Amino acid sequence: MKGEILSVGTELLLGHLVDTNAPYLAESLSELGVDVYFISQVGDNLDRLVLALQRGWERSDLIVITGGLGPTGDDLTREAISALLGQEMVVQPGLVEDLRAFFTRRNRSMPERNVKQATLIPSARALANPIGTAPGWWVEKDGRVIVAMPGVPVEMKRMWEQEALPGLGKVAGGWVILSRTVKTLGIGESQAEHELRELTASPNPTVATYAKRDGVHVRITAKAQSAEAAQEMVTGVEGKVRGIIGDHIYGVDRESVADAIGELLSRSGLTLGTMEVGTGGQLSSTLTTASTGGDLFSGGLLAHGAATLSRFGVDQARVAEKGTLSDNVARAMATAARASLLTEIGLAVACGMEQDGAGEQTFGVVYAAVDLQGDVSSVANRYSTTYADLRRRAVLDAMDLLRRRVMAN
Amino acid sequence: MKGEILSVGTELLLGHLVDTNAPYLAESLSELGVDVYFISQVGDNLDRLVLALQRGWERSDLIVITGGLGPTGDDLTREAISALLGQEMVVQPGLVEDLRAFFTRRNRSMPERNVKQATLIPSARALANPIGTAPGWWVEKDGRVIVAMPGVPVEMKRMWEQEALPGLGKVAGGWVILSRTVKTLGIGESQAEHELRELTASPNPTVATYAKRDGVHVRITAKAQSAEAAQEMVTGVEGKVRGIIGDHIYGVDRESVADAIGELLSRSGLTLGTMEVGTGGQLSSTLTTASTGGDLFSGGLLAHGAATLSRFGVDQARVAEKGTLSDNVARAMATAARASLLTEIGLAVACGMEQDGAGEQTFGVVYAAVDLQGDVSSVANRYSTTYADLRRRAVLDAMDLLRRRVMAN
Repeated sequence: MKGEILSVGTELLLGHLVDTNAPYLAESLSELGVDVYFISQVGDNLDRLVLALQRGWERSDLIVITGGLGPTGDDLTREAISALLGQEMVVQPGLVEDLRAFFTRRNRSMPERNVKQATLIPSARALANPIGTAPGWWVEKDGRVIVAMPGVPVEMKRMWEQEALPGLGKVAGGWVILSRTVKTLGIGESQAEHELRELTASPNPTVATYAKRDGVHVRITAKAQSAEAAQEMVTGVEGKVRGIIGDHIYGVDRESVADAIGELLSRSGLTLGTMEVGTGGQLSSTLTTASTGGDLFSGGLLAHGAATLSRFGVDQARVAEKGTLSDNVARAMATAARASLLTEIGLAVACGMEQDGAGEQTFGVVYAAVDLQGDVSSVANRYSTTYADLRRRAVLDAMDLLRRRVMAN
Repeated sequence: MKGEILSVGTELLLGHLVDTNAPYLAESLSELGVDVYFISQVGDNLDRLVLALQRGWERSDLIVITGGLGPTGDDLTREAISALLGQEMVVQPGLVEDLRAFFTRRNRSMPERNVKQATLIPSARALANPIGTAPGWWVEKDGRVIVAMPGVPVEMKRMWEQEALPGLGKVAGGWVILSRTVKTLGIGESQAEHELRELTASPNPTVATYAKRDGVHVRITAKAQSAEAAQEMVTGVEGKVRGIIGDHIYGVDRESVADAIGELLSRSGLTLGTMEVGTGGQLSSTLTTASTGGDLFSGGLLAHGAATLSRFGVDQARVAEKGTLSDNVARAMATAARASLLTEIGLAVACGMEQDGAGEQTFGVVYAAVDLQGDVSSVANRYSTTYADLRRRAVLDAMDLLRRRVMAN
C-alpha cells in the first residue's frame, strides 16, 4: 500500500512552525507496512491544496492530511477534498449538536462559523475529536482512503491512535500491529545489536535497536491477525530480550530513567539527596521529572567549584589533593550529600572537559558515586564529545549507577 | 519570486528525523521576499527525486534542496539535477584537491568514493563547505536557480548564510534584508504590540512581536539597497523600541536571559548563589548556560520541602507559619542562599500549584526574591497554567527580578 502525508498551513511555509506531525505519522505508517514516498507541506490556498490532493490521489492509495480543519476562512482542507471528489459539503445536525455540547461544557456558546466544522461529504464519515472542535474526516472512494485530521499535535495523535489506526489496519490487510520499546543504559548500540543478532534477524516480530538521547532503545514490533496474538508475540520476544540484556533495561515505552528511579524509591522507601559539579543542576532537574517517588527526593546541592564543595561538607584537603574531577572526591560528595540532606541515599556526579598529557586532545570525564546507607559505589567514564553533550551523559551515568545500586540492594 | 524547498532523505519518510532545515530556510526565504508555496520531503530514490525536481522547475524560480550530497550510492541529489537538466557530471580536479586536503587535516586518507562529491555540471558552480565533505551546488539556467546543500543542519546553515544568501539577494532583486530580534521580559505580547503600535504599522522596517518561551520578542526587519543602509534603518528603529519598552529588554538576537545575567555579574564582579523549591533545579541549570560570568555563580540549593529548607538555614517557624509558598519565605530563602554559599547575591524562587478558596480553580503561584548584600526585593506572580509551564515561568520571573535588581545597583 502506498501512502503520502500532507501537512497544511501557511505557517509551515513561513517557517514559523516545525512540522512534527509528518514524522510521527511517517513512523506509524511505516510500522503498518505502508510505503510513504512523499511528504509535503502546503499553504492555506485552495488551488494549491486541490493540486496537491490530485497528485496524491493519482499516485497513492492513502493520503493522510493534518491541518486546515479549523473554523476560519483560511481552513480549506474540507473544501479541497470536496473539490477533488466533486462532492458537496452538507451540514450534519448530529455533529452540530456535538460541537454545541463541546462549547457548552466550556461555558461558551458556539460561534456560528464553527458550523463549517460539522459538515461531511457523502464519501466521508466523521472521526471523533473529544479534545477539540474539529472532527476529522475518513474518506473512502474507489479503493482509496483519505484521512484528514486537525493540525494540533495532541488532537491529531489521539485521533490517529484511537479513530484512524484501527480502521487503517483493516484497509492495510486486516493485520494488527503492536510495538513495544524496551529502553537500556550502559550498553552501546553496536553491542546491543550484536547480542540480539538472532532476534533482529527475525521478520516477525521485528527487533530493531536505536541510539537515543536516553540510551539504546530496542523496539519490538509484531504483526498478527488479532491484538491478543500480536501482544503474545511481543511479550514472548521481550522475555528473550530481557534474558540477554536484562540488567541494562530500565524501562518500557514512555517510562523514563527518572520514572524508573522514582518507582524504585517508592518501593524501597529510601530518601535521596544529590550533589553535582559541572552538570549545572541537570541531575536534580531530571530526577524531579519522575512520575512517582518525588516526595522521597529531599533536595539537591549544586557546586560550582572547590570552595562551594567544602561549604557542602566535602573535605577541602581531599579536593585539593585529588582534584574536583576524581573518583575519590565523587565518593566524598555522595557521602556529604547524605549528611547535608539527612537522606538514606546520597548521589553525586562531577563532570568536565580534560586534556590528555600532550595537550592535544580534549575529552570529557564523568565521575559518579552513590552512598547507600554508608555503602559507597562509584563509576568513572570518559567520552569524546562536547561539554553540552557530556552533561547529558553524566546525568545518565549517575542515574544508571543509582538504579543498579538500589536494584541490587 | 517563487521558491520551493525540497528535503531529501529516506529517513525523513520513515519518520526517523524531523525536518528542521525546511522551516529554517522557509523563514529566511520569506525575509528575502521569496514566496514559498511548497515544501516537500522525498526519499533517496532517483526517479521520484527527478519527478519532484521537474515539478519544481515548472512552477518555481528557485528550488532549495538539502540532503543527498553525501558520498554513498544513496546520495542522489547531484544525479537528479544532472538528469533534470540533461547535463553530465564532470569531476573537478580543484574540488578533489580540496576534499583530499579536508581528509588530510583530519589525519585520514580520502576514500575513493568521495570523488563523486567533487563533481559539477556545466550550469553549476560549487558552494564551499569548509566544515564537511560535501560542497554545495549553485545551478543557474534559463532564469531559474537551484541551490543544493548538505542535509547536516550546521553545514547547511553555514553554507546558506555565507555562500548562498549573498548570491540570492542579487537574484531576488538586489535588495539586502537585515533583521534584529530584541528580547523582553515582564511585558505581555498584546501590551508590547500596543505600545509599539506606531512602529508595527510601518512597512519598512517592519516591526513584529512574537510570544516566545523566553519572553516577547520584537523583530525588526529592514530592506534596503545596501547592507549599510539596512543596518542603519534597523539601528534607528531599535533605538525607538528601546525608548518605549527599554526597561523590559534583556538581550538581542541569540543572547539569552542567562547570558544577560552572566554579563551583568561579570561587569559588577558580584557572586551569586541560588535556592529553589518546586522548580526542580531549573533555575540553576538555566543560569549555568550563560556564555560568560559562570565563575561568579558559586552554587545552588534545591529543596524538596520544608524539612530541607530548614536544613538550608531557612527558619523552620517562619516556614510553618507562612507556608513554603509565600513572599516571606522566599525572602528568607534568598538571604539563606547568600549565607550558605557566602555570596554577594542570593536568588530564591518557589513555585507550586494552589487552589482558590472554593477549591474550584487551580492556578500556579511564583514567589521570587533577591538579596543583594543584605538588601532584599521580591516579586509574586500567579498564572493559569500547567505545572511544567509554571516552572519555566518561575525561572524567568526569578531571572528577570535579578536582572532588574543588579541593573539598578
